[in-house]
Amino acid sequence: MKFAINPNRNDWSDLLRRPTQTFENIEMTVNEIFSEVRQRGDASIKAYTETFDDVTVKQIKVTPEEIDRASSAILNDLKSAIQLAKANITAFHEAQKTDCIKVTTTQGVVCWQEKRAIQKVGLYIPGGTAPLFSTVLMLAIPAQIAGVSEIVLCSPPNKSGNIPDEVLYTAQLCGISKIFKVGGIQAIAGLTFGTESIPKVNKIFGPGNQFVTTAKQIATKFGVAIDMPAGPSELLIVADETSKAQYIAADLLSQAEHGTDSQVILVANSKQFMETVKQEVERQLVALPRQTIAKKVMDKSRFISFNSKTDTLDFINAYAPEHLILCTSENDFYATNVVNAGSVFIGNFSPESAGDYASGTNHTLPTNGYSKAYSGVNLDSFSKSITFQEISEQGLVNIGNAIEVMAEAEGLQAHKNAVSMRLADINLKRK
Amino acid sequence: MKFAINPNRNDWSDLLRRPTQTFENIEMTVNEIFSEVRQRGDASIKAYTETFDDVTVKQIKVTPEEIDRASSAILNDLKSAIQLAKANITAFHEAQKTDCIKVTTTQGVVCWQEKRAIQKVGLYIPGGTAPLFSTVLMLAIPAQIAGVSEIVLCSPPNKSGNIPDEVLYTAQLCGISKIFKVGGIQAIAGLTFGTESIPKVNKIFGPGNQFVTTAKQIATKFGVAIDMPAGPSELLIVADETSKAQYIAADLLSQAEHGTDSQVILVANSKQFMETVKQEVERQLVALPRQTIAKKVMDKSRFISFNSKTDTLDFINAYAPEHLILCTSENDFYATNVVNAGSVFIGNFSPESAGDYASGTNHTLPTNGYSKAYSGVNLDSFSKSITFQEISEQGLVNIGNAIEVMAEAEGLQAHKNAVSMRLADINLKRK
Repeated sequence: MKFAINPNRNDWSDLLRRPTQTFENIEMTVNEIFSEVRQRGDASIKAYTETFDDVTVKQIKVTPEEIDRASSAILNDLKSAIQLAKANITAFHEAQKTDCIKVTTTQGVVCWQEKRAIQKVGLYIPGGTAPLFSTVLMLAIPAQIAGVSEIVLCSPPNKSGNIPDEVLYTAQLCGISKIFKVGGIQAIAGLTFGTESIPKVNKIFGPGNQFVTTAKQIATKFGVAIDMPAGPSELLIVADETSKAQYIAADLLSQAEHGTDSQVILVANSKQFMETVKQEVERQLVALPRQTIAKKVMDKSRFISFNSKTDTLDFINAYAPEHLILCTSENDFYATNVVNAGSVFIGNFSPESAGDYASGTNHTLPTNGYSKAYSGVNLDSFSKSITFQEISEQGLVNIGNAIEVMAEAEGLQAHKNAVSMRLADINLKRK
Repeated sequence: MKFAINPNRNDWSDLLRRPTQTFENIEMTVNEIFSEVRQRGDASIKAYTETFDDVTVKQIKVTPEEIDRASSAILNDLKSAIQLAKANITAFHEAQKTDCIKVTTTQGVVCWQEKRAIQKVGLYIPGGTAPLFSTVLMLAIPAQIAGVSEIVLCSPPNKSGNIPDEVLYTAQLCGISKIFKVGGIQAIAGLTFGTESIPKVNKIFGPGNQFVTTAKQIATKFGVAIDMPAGPSELLIVADETSKAQYIAADLLSQAEHGTDSQVILVANSKQFMETVKQEVERQLVALPRQTIAKKVMDKSRFISFNSKTDTLDFINAYAPEHLILCTSENDFYATNVVNAGSVFIGNFSPESAGDYASGTNHTLPTNGYSKAYSGVNLDSFSKSITFQEISEQGLVNIGNAIEVMAEAEGLQAHKNAVSMRLADINLKRK
């Protein structure tokens, strides 16, 4: 851990720094795989799965029988837990629905904005050491509420050629039936171009390693939208002596166990409190199954104390954390004034795990400082706004001259004509 | 013009095709300029301005005196027109404000979503043959309403080293004072990295040629967000005999005069009507100052008739036009069922020019089929959502077990611990 006591603003840049990632080499690989999948479809998908996942998949699409078998293999207490999470996530995302916005801007000029679901979306669920079924909930639930008509899910097969039961059960619970055993760059390529079995989609969602992340970035060159650029997960905690060091340590460790590239920062108001948290971290660390990963992250972590609320707030906003935990006597001040963060957890009984799984908020959030410009995944991520305008004769009379003058000034005579000839007709008729 | 009468769905792909663009060569140039601007700042900006815009700019930032001088040079009727447009655009975008969304998902678990303005945005206003002051309105007004704290405007200097008076007047009217004489790739590089004079921003907005478009795409690799990917402007009109061929021709031509890469499509329900529009186009074309451009576009245009409403609707949604004009006896059907479009103009008195300038809707819209996944610029483009959660002791008791079970199933023990130790404390206290 690196301690910094009331650091000077000139020295913040080091404390704000994120691990740099270079994607140059990966880009070449992505371009190659994209080109292959685009040309050869399923055949190349299967070949890459053999190469990268070390398993032969005969049929890429998961069958209804496989889904049924997976669902019946899930224990009841996990089913109940997933269902409770689903209910909360549904409640929070349902509430994000918006009405049509309609305004008469000038008499006879009616403008409105309506949201329409994106028609086809792809959800990417990473593989790895554990089944990340919680991400299925976070992506599939808002997609369904938004009214997406085709939801496609891709996830890499494990060594026995299957997608984990938990992922299949959760997908099925969320009404998703188009599930494909494919991961990595080749999955993103399949969703971008479409293959014999995988549908081409309009937008791709979901986390992934640096290969998937780079592939998503490249996919945008081919007309596909993505949820957001992604980097390693991160947590910033602001705590003071009104919090409990034991909880703060546990929350730091829960972030630290994600992967060795995770970042954790503690901002406190005293060195003594930071020392106590440090000791708690060391005490809890030894009991963790993923202690090797968590220790590496904690070794790189930063514990910073500031003397003032203003410095603390400015530091939060300059870092723009994915997750922000507030456990201080001034939570209202920080919650009201924070401008850059993905999701905020307030008070001693709101651990990050709650938002990761079951409180109702989405856990697909902007990392790497992207919360300065991006939202986390929410209901609007699955739709787009269309504007409409309907102008009456009188409406055009009211704004027509302004349009003519502006079009003329921009040197666009045909734009002006389109108004002038209508106005001439209206004038004739009114005589 | 290419006519197609009730084309078979198998033959649609040709009719839906957009001009392909290759950016490979441009990318190399962009990378070079980005690297130079990043290292040498203003000096390289000035050098590129000399090379590409053929003018020497001593001071990149526009002075208050220049802005005052420009404003007093604008004629009163243009000032009034711009002010009318500003009022309508303001009314429509003000109405897009949303409230905080707050939900108790489970007793004791309160989740909410709040929007916060992006702190720093860059607005790019292209140069060229005419001053595109209308785009200043379309970007600056929602940025101000959203509450963006730093708005930076870049636009290329003309041969005399100035930004057009109309652009400066409009910027000043919208409360923008940070205006820089820089265009092209070097402008996007300046906004991405910041220089001695140009502030680094979080998100870049605005249209541009293929150089600017590619530069914006590359900027996203450096942590900057962009409004949307861009392509040439386009219009699809659906018309029948209830419309007036003269107006339809004028609207097609208003789109066609933008540039030789513009696309226009007419979908009608009879060959005869298409013939009438064709004759009208030829008649009006000869009087246009930009007839060379417009003729090239009209030569490539497609006039398609369908026998059924369903085919027409499916064709609209497959093409996903930036601008969609509906002049038929079935406008309600199309307006209700369209899912992919940027902005929709309904009826005989709603020409595209109205939305380009003064109705109130935004004219920065998704082209190239991007309306399948992207919205046009709107109030939300200038802010992002942050989620919050505050969980009480009882709240954690209500959802804690579900979190524990899910974290365990995902192999994330530290995530579980963060909940378990809090639940243990609550249980102890309650005994």
